[in-house]
Amino acid sequence: MRKHNFNAGPSVLPEFTLEQTAKAVLDFNGSGMSILEISHRSKDFEAVLAETKALFKELLNIPDGYSILFLGGGASLQFCMVPFNLLNKKAAYLNTGVWASKAMKEAKLFGEVVEVASSKADNYTYIPKNFTVPEDVDYFHVTTNNTIYGTELKTDLSVNVPLVADASSDILSRPMDVSKYGLIYGGAQKNLGPAGVTFVIVKNDILGKVTRPIPTMLDYKTHIENDSLFNTPPAFGIFAILQTLKWIKSIGGINAIYKMNLEKAALLYEEIDRNPLFRCPVSVAEDRSIMNVCFVMNEQYKELENEFLELTKTKGIVGIKGHRSVGGFRASTYNALPKASVEVLVAAMQEFAKQKA
Amino acid sequence: MRKHNFNAGPSVLPEFTLEQTAKAVLDFNGSGMSILEISHRSKDFEAVLAETKALFKELLNIPDGYSILFLGGGASLQFCMVPFNLLNKKAAYLNTGVWASKAMKEAKLFGEVVEVASSKADNYTYIPKNFTVPEDVDYFHVTTNNTIYGTELKTDLSVNVPLVADASSDILSRPMDVSKYGLIYGGAQKNLGPAGVTFVIVKNDILGKVTRPIPTMLDYKTHIENDSLFNTPPAFGIFAILQTLKWIKSIGGINAIYKMNLEKAALLYEEIDRNPLFRCPVSVAEDRSIMNVCFVMNEQYKELENEFLELTKTKGIVGIKGHRSVGGFRASTYNALPKASVEVLVAAMQEFAKQKA
Repeated sequence: MRKHNFNAGPSVLPEFTLEQTAKAVLDFNGSGMSILEISHRSKDFEAVLAETKALFKELLNIPDGYSILFLGGGASLQFCMVPFNLLNKKAAYLNTGVWASKAMKEAKLFGEVVEVASSKADNYTYIPKNFTVPEDVDYFHVTTNNTIYGTELKTDLSVNVPLVADASSDILSRPMDVSKYGLIYGGAQKNLGPAGVTFVIVKNDILGKVTRPIPTMLDYKTHIENDSLFNTPPAFGIFAILQTLKWIKSIGGINAIYKMNLEKAALLYEEIDRNPLFRCPVSVAEDRSIMNVCFVMNEQYKELENEFLELTKTKGIVGIKGHRSVGGFRASTYNALPKASVEVLVAAMQEFAKQKA
Repeated sequence: MRKHNFNAGPSVLPEFTLEQTAKAVLDFNGSGMSILEISHRSKDFEAVLAETKALFKELLNIPDGYSILFLGGGASLQFCMVPFNLLNKKAAYLNTGVWASKAMKEAKLFGEVVEVASSKADNYTYIPKNFTVPEDVDYFHVTTNNTIYGTELKTDLSVNVPLVADASSDILSRPMDVSKYGLIYGGAQKNLGPAGVTFVIVKNDILGKVTRPIPTMLDYKTHIENDSLFNTPPAFGIFAILQTLKWIKSIGGINAIYKMNLEKAALLYEEIDRNPLFRCPVSVAEDRSIMNVCFVMNEQYKELENEFLELTKTKGIVGIKGHRSVGGFRASTYNALPKASVEVLVAAMQEFAKQKA
């Protein structure tokens, strides 16, 4: 029996991805070898890589002039690779949470960092707006979705400097105007595949403008020139991403998945708003994430948190305990989470309210 | 039908590893979730990580005072992480091939690099000996096995500075006196598991001696303090490594695998030396690798190379084309390669000699 998996990441993947990757671990494509055993320089693997890139480009409508890379090290490594490659003197960051703060910390090793706005004082319960990005910065960095706080920057900002986005937790969950970005990166382990592979979508002409020497593996140009094959890439992860991209295409592409994500999130937020036991801590409704739905118990019911968690366990629900810095609950509703899982959670919330409210 | 897989890496894995990982991709441990879907902060995954480290320590006899890390980015990322963390002023390197050269190139970004010896002028056909490591260097770096040239440094050197080894292609193939090393690193994709995970075994007290600021993800101390869980690690790769370690233990541990590796290599080298068509380009017999057996056709038979490759294909043999910088053939005989595969290759060499010599 599959669990109702609301994990924040690594998280639920399409059954198609699991079935195809399990099959390929035993035998890839009738080759007499596992996907774990084939050379990354073989024609077979080159075809996997080419198809993954082509499908990513097609689904996200990535314009020409951008490179698509698959690297190791996680989004956390990108926190230093971005300034290594792009920060000459000054960079601007929007502080929307822990991940944005971690990215800023790394950038400070390379130059001046301007925090254009922050919602830290309010425990990151909204996305700051009406800020000004200085015109003399080398880039402006945003985190599009904040897993811990359940907030999401849902618009593609228009700025006059390269826009860099950590989209680890909402990539391919909704249409994005990639042409507005200079660089988009993220770990695969939410909407794409297993942990251990990081995608980078980079506009080629924003590179080559810093003068510092960059270690070969940390230089985006190394990976562009070698098509992610400078060294052995995380091949299994790339293969798994390909399966997920095929699945997204099979169900109708990005607009279809976006519609499903909106429906799932709406179901859950409506219940949170309606249910007397719960409330959503995100203070500005339009900033509510469609990927991570955070909710807490109303003050008078606080002591029932564990009891509710126990009830959800009996329904096969896992991963809804909130991050310790926010408390309460977090239901991550990534692409692969079935609507049926949300319905089970909503039913549990209603059942608990009947007992307690 | 499984191929006789002589790939240089990614390469053959134990069938046990493939079966266990395929099963866990569909369902991990009866959890109702895939190994790709469980949280890296769950008790289940923490148990996987702890068992992997404990078994690595047991099999390789790693002394106390060393940390075992599993990171992303490949051994190529270690080429810059090593000097980032260890190089204050000067480091010494032994140049035994392309990988050693690449490691040296990165180190030069951080300080002075002394090449203590090199076999480059002879196309790396032997391991230099009788060199002196300067006493004032911060560390001495060696590549224990050179996949491209089929040479191997089989002894654990005694030096008065921290000894750093890239052991990507011979880790766990033979006993190593880890206490002689300050740091051992390598990609998993030869003897341990899939590409995308890198092991680092580091003696804790060699760290903390450089003054430069180190980006968080490139600082070994970050990963030691967080037990490889600072960010989401390549969890699937770690799980696969655990299966391989269990397999090594099940067949008798490092001494048993070493004996098997010696037997496989001996079978092949004996045939190369005996067969009138072939010769081994490694110029010093004691430097012949037991992991990558390189051989070329004798001058008068050079034009038969492709014909021999075609013959081996009919026997289910893959991956024996030599690296373009050496030519000829390379049979990688990593831990998981069955002796039966070597016997099939030897038989093909004999059959071809009967036809042609």
